[in-house]
Amino acid sequence: MPAPDPYLALEARFRRMALVDEARALLGWDWATMMPAGSAGARAEQMAELDLIVHARATDPELADLLAAAEDSADRLEFWQRANLVEMRRLWRHAGAVPADLVAALTKAASACEMIWREARPANDFARLRPSLARVLTLIREVAAAKAAVFDCAPYEALLDYYEPGGRIAQIDALFDDLAGFLPDFTQRVLDRQALRGPPLPLDGPFPLDRQRALGTRLMAAIGFPFDHGRLDESHHPFSGGTPEDLRITTRYERGDFTLALMATLHETGHALYEHGLPKRWRRQPVGAARGMSLHESQSLLIEMQVCRGREFLGFAAPLIRTTFCRDGPAWTADNLARHARRVRRGLIRVEADEVTYPAHVIQRTRLERAMIAGRLEVADLPTAWRETMAELVGATPADDRDGCMQDIHWIGADFGYFPTYTLGALAAAQLFAAAAESDAAILAAIATGDFSPLFAWLAANVHGHASSLSGEQLMTAATGRRLDTKAFKAHLRARYLED
Amino acid sequence: MPAPDPYLALEARFRRMALVDEARALLGWDWATMMPAGSAGARAEQMAELDLIVHARATDPELADLLAAAEDSADRLEFWQRANLVEMRRLWRHAGAVPADLVAALTKAASACEMIWREARPANDFARLRPSLARVLTLIREVAAAKAAVFDCAPYEALLDYYEPGGRIAQIDALFDDLAGFLPDFTQRVLDRQALRGPPLPLDGPFPLDRQRALGTRLMAAIGFPFDHGRLDESHHPFSGGTPEDLRITTRYERGDFTLALMATLHETGHALYEHGLPKRWRRQPVGAARGMSLHESQSLLIEMQVCRGREFLGFAAPLIRTTFCRDGPAWTADNLARHARRVRRGLIRVEADEVTYPAHVIQRTRLERAMIAGRLEVADLPTAWRETMAELVGATPADDRDGCMQDIHWIGADFGYFPTYTLGALAAAQLFAAAAESDAAILAAIATGDFSPLFAWLAANVHGHASSLSGEQLMTAATGRRLDTKAFKAHLRARYLED
Repeated sequence: MPAPDPYLALEARFRRMALVDEARALLGWDWATMMPAGSAGARAEQMAELDLIVHARATDPELADLLAAAEDSADRLEFWQRANLVEMRRLWRHAGAVPADLVAALTKAASACEMIWREARPANDFARLRPSLARVLTLIREVAAAKAAVFDCAPYEALLDYYEPGGRIAQIDALFDDLAGFLPDFTQRVLDRQALRGPPLPLDGPFPLDRQRALGTRLMAAIGFPFDHGRLDESHHPFSGGTPEDLRITTRYERGDFTLALMATLHETGHALYEHGLPKRWRRQPVGAARGMSLHESQSLLIEMQVCRGREFLGFAAPLIRTTFCRDGPAWTADNLARHARRVRRGLIRVEADEVTYPAHVIQRTRLERAMIAGRLEVADLPTAWRETMAELVGATPADDRDGCMQDIHWIGADFGYFPTYTLGALAAAQLFAAAAESDAAILAAIATGDFSPLFAWLAANVHGHASSLSGEQLMTAATGRRLDTKAFKAHLRARYLED
Repeated sequence: MPAPDPYLALEARFRRMALVDEARALLGWDWATMMPAGSAGARAEQMAELDLIVHARATDPELADLLAAAEDSADRLEFWQRANLVEMRRLWRHAGAVPADLVAALTKAASACEMIWREARPANDFARLRPSLARVLTLIREVAAAKAAVFDCAPYEALLDYYEPGGRIAQIDALFDDLAGFLPDFTQRVLDRQALRGPPLPLDGPFPLDRQRALGTRLMAAIGFPFDHGRLDESHHPFSGGTPEDLRITTRYERGDFTLALMATLHETGHALYEHGLPKRWRRQPVGAARGMSLHESQSLLIEMQVCRGREFLGFAAPLIRTTFCRDGPAWTADNLARHARRVRRGLIRVEADEVTYPAHVIQRTRLERAMIAGRLEVADLPTAWRETMAELVGATPADDRDGCMQDIHWIGADFGYFPTYTLGALAAAQLFAAAAESDAAILAAIATGDFSPLFAWLAANVHGHASSLSGEQLMTAATGRRLDTKAFKAHLRARYLED
């Protein structure tokens, strides 16, 4: 019997790792949606065990041998297989950089921290959260240091690479500095203009939750969410989880304002349809995975911000909204709904922020988490640092920690290096949607009739279908003709907020 | 550094296997309750992968060495540790008997068969089910043959041992022959008596599902179900899943008859509270697991049949039932509810059968599955064999396969050797409950007031707390003074159906 082909042996191994990761994804979804609170400790241990299994497989010395052998004969491989090998090597480096016991300790610490956060945040009790968050920070610093040594880069950049493959601090600084220069004056002009026009007519509630859910699923279906391969549920914090074959998105309902849950649902639908659109033939291979979190966010923001807050979509959705809630009259026109969908406010809460003020939240978080990873900021000093940077960057200061430094789940869950991808995603969403609309005039016209197929044909060809076979930069260049920049995003904001 | 203690090394290994099994249990629960149909194929592969991981660990040659070393020095161990070692050896023998690829093939075949069954059963399309069920039978016969060689027993007994450790065909034959002699005449006497009295007053529906759910959770809470460690959901077929720290039970609602969902809920509550009552200090060790499926069934039937269809419980529950459904009048007295809870009918559906006719269903399934495993009955001949044995043993013949040989999920899911445990459990439930009520007169009196703590104190001391540290026979003898027999069950049936 000839020796098995090293590349095919790698495919088999990564497939088995992916299966465990899929199981892990379901445990994580259940954790956030279904699990009774008392089960958290046991579940954290189950998730840590699955992480350990994948980590052990990803750091198996035989894997290193197979990678080396496959790379030696990579010229025999097809294009996508070579790209797969590059991704395998990248994942191997991430896994090998961190000792197994540190992986397990971090998983458990993050789970424990989240369970405390769920109670400490509503109680505005930062002192209660502090020790467990400090524990997470200690461990993630160790992870960052270990990865920085392997990747030969700054610790924060090593964390960033996990969410944003190939992401560089220098590039982010350039883009964020550009936005930080543009946005303060622009935001003030938008606020002045909206003040002059006065508020939109109020959308009077209450809005029963089952009706909100019906509206959400109706619009998800219109956009193309495959309900035979996914579900919509509820969680504290909306997210898109599950697997490409079993998309689990969540939202959070408020009785007095249906737009919050609806926009969260549409946002997560964008995430889910990216996963669903990944090529089936590359399923469970590293090359078949989504190309980093900023491109992921671009897909959710393309749907939520570019499409669903646009006039074409709202023209299609307005009659459905009226029917769902049995409402009518001037407050329920597409125009007044658009005015609600585009209200700009200097607010305290990132997840409720509009697209104009959102980048300031992200720049603020990025600044703080870089300081924390660098050892320049400790958890004890976070509340003060939060208030100062919020005042400076967002122009709003929280009265308490609940709506301040305890509002986001990311640091709680050890996701440091993730925040920049929100704004990188917003830039990419604008740039991709502009390219799509320019390449096919039918896209916007079809959306106005509730037909999203031209849009998704373009996305399949230019984004989803590439999965991780191209780098983020290659993909953006192929799809839009240039690297990621701020031009399309600024043009989009000007057109929507100063000219529409 | 001294060599690690082999026994402690085994504990660590079995703990890690248990964690994967727990993850597997959640995937199974989600499969039956939440998963969209299109995700079944991917999920089956995930579950098969977790099974493979546990199987690989359970058949690791190092495990065999550790077992031998620990058994050599077992006299140093505490009582429960020695029992743990015995259970570890038993699990090792079950795992080692079956090749890994056969385990994976069976898991996948059973998942595929279930997805077909979900559609073929309502469509009454046995021809559609046949190939996939035949595939399951082929594979389970291979498993049975492999285990029989290792355990040196009949293939069917080797399967039985997995569900009923130490279970023997000869013992089951003796008990079932006894029942098969007793029940036909007894059943006819009960039917004659009930015909003479006429039917109970009808409980007119409809019963809104949210009200049914509220009633179920209210009574679960009264009995002691810990909602911070568990949930109630819906599935095609009610079951008790999850883990001891995260109990996931399900029921199935029918709008026109609330008693079906309610009794299923109470039944599964009995299962769940057994799991929850297993000693925390033995958690994730083989000795800490439930002592086989017949004892498990004894705990569900003790709650459903012995307690919840008894006059004390119904006296407590009747006012709650009236309030929940806003009903009143003579149909809603505890006495009329008891007459509903005790109606005996020769029916076609096992899960709807009363406790008098249920054993005949089980004896029929046991006979058929023994023939299938022995190679004396093929899937193609199952519908005919089903009708013939139903006529003979139950006295009712299905008009179609939907309510015939396609009604149960067990064979679909490769659970051969499971059926006898239902009736062994019914015998054990009667024997245990009689012993409990005799040892503490406060038990029945407290149930009448909705206080289940004396009952659960007895169960904790005599059943739940032993977990697998005693054999089933040792446990029954310690708790009731004698081995399992039919006396208490027959006395219970006589008292309830001929004398009450």
